[in-house]
Amino acid sequence: MDLKLVDVEVKKWLKEARSNVLSQMHQKIVVNTKTSNKDLVTNIDKQNENFLVNKIREFDPDAKIMGEEGFGDHVTSLDGHVWIVDPIDGTMNFVKQGNHFAMMISLYIDGNAELGYIYNVMKDELISGGRSIGVFNNDKLLAPPVDTHLSEGLVGLSGPLVLNDVFKMQAIAKQSLGMRIYGSAGLDIISVIKGELVGYISYLKPWDIAAGLACGQPLGLIITNIDGEPLDMISSNLVLISTKNTHRDILSILKG
Amino acid sequence: MDLKLVDVEVKKWLKEARSNVLSQMHQKIVVNTKTSNKDLVTNIDKQNENFLVNKIREFDPDAKIMGEEGFGDHVTSLDGHVWIVDPIDGTMNFVKQGNHFAMMISLYIDGNAELGYIYNVMKDELISGGRSIGVFNNDKLLAPPVDTHLSEGLVGLSGPLVLNDVFKMQAIAKQSLGMRIYGSAGLDIISVIKGELVGYISYLKPWDIAAGLACGQPLGLIITNIDGEPLDMISSNLVLISTKNTHRDILSILKG
Repeated sequence: MDLKLVDVEVKKWLKEARSNVLSQMHQKIVVNTKTSNKDLVTNIDKQNENFLVNKIREFDPDAKIMGEEGFGDHVTSLDGHVWIVDPIDGTMNFVKQGNHFAMMISLYIDGNAELGYIYNVMKDELISGGRSIGVFNNDKLLAPPVDTHLSEGLVGLSGPLVLNDVFKMQAIAKQSLGMRIYGSAGLDIISVIKGELVGYISYLKPWDIAAGLACGQPLGLIITNIDGEPLDMISSNLVLISTKNTHRDILSILKG
Repeated sequence: MDLKLVDVEVKKWLKEARSNVLSQMHQKIVVNTKTSNKDLVTNIDKQNENFLVNKIREFDPDAKIMGEEGFGDHVTSLDGHVWIVDPIDGTMNFVKQGNHFAMMISLYIDGNAELGYIYNVMKDELISGGRSIGVFNNDKLLAPPVDTHLSEGLVGLSGPLVLNDVFKMQAIAKQSLGMRIYGSAGLDIISVIKGELVGYISYLKPWDIAAGLACGQPLGLIITNIDGEPLDMISSNLVLISTKNTHRDILSILKG
């Protein structure tokens, strides 16, 4: 499989998906809750996952697909081709702001993160690529972000983790120059990739971080669970994605 | 003074100021600390305030000017014409992200907020206008945001207030559907004006809130200090800007 050709194809799907979502946003959005009143899904999440899953099935019929809204397969291993899809990341922002949400797709081959796509829909800013083809911001090749320490940068955190002060989130925030809470893993990860944040910590499902890992690792970012161990891409993780120095700084606070 | 003509003039200054700042950002930025290592000022803050203050002096020579970086006057009352200028709001974001900062200008006449301008520089999104000419997002007339309750929306907060949990910030965040921390009063206030946030609370200087009051009040937003009392536009305030319903909800939490 020529990853450059795959890349061209996925970008076409995403542009079409963006256009669909923008036109659907002008119609009535049907919102349902999942596990709580803060865990939302809309008809547009579902329609967009259905759209993307169909594109993948047509293009790569033997692959397995892991999707947030259940249009994919029940995936239990990363053997072979596994596509991971988040049709709308930051659904609360999507519903309440009509802004600040992302689409994410990635392709794993035999457990290796080969391609990732994180798309800030309203800003039309696409982070894309992977270890073999390079990582791009729209059409511009990205350089690795500066390896900044926590005390010299802004850190992205999950609101609930901060409010419950688990895993010393408030101490981590206080050691930084400031915390930011954006409410979309995709947008936080884009910020880390661009060097606007030195790190981001949140409890994430595979579709929230899979594309970030594919794009972030080739740029020198460290992506682990909060214990510093590799992520399990089949289940949930408390994820830390950051520069090398900030990774050391945060693990040191957690062990202190 | 014809406020529509003033409006045309101020918009010209802001476009020119944006162009100056964008070109200065490609050069070396000189950063200094003010009251702490989290309170920054750069050569660009100063150059831009100087630029805007000169434009105002030329246009309205008898007016007083209150500016963050000291190029204005020592203003002790709002009698007559008072211009209030924040050349770069969200200086930490400006320095660390090169993104997510604002310019703000407002004109008060005998204590009345007549015109306000909040400019998201990187996004080129300008909120402008006032009670007599209407409030615009770029060239589009804005309608008042929906009067949403705190429990039905996202709330913008200041990171330090949340971490120190003063004025029940964490309880307020928990009663909402989620807190967001953007790190620029201007950008938070734009979000409240557009209905993306139901409210915003932060400790603010006059130049951080003056334009927000000029644009927000005509749209039905309530802007007071945290006790529900009118702001003192000559000094600092712990400011609450929100929809009517969220204002009641937050005051009720604080009194509870």
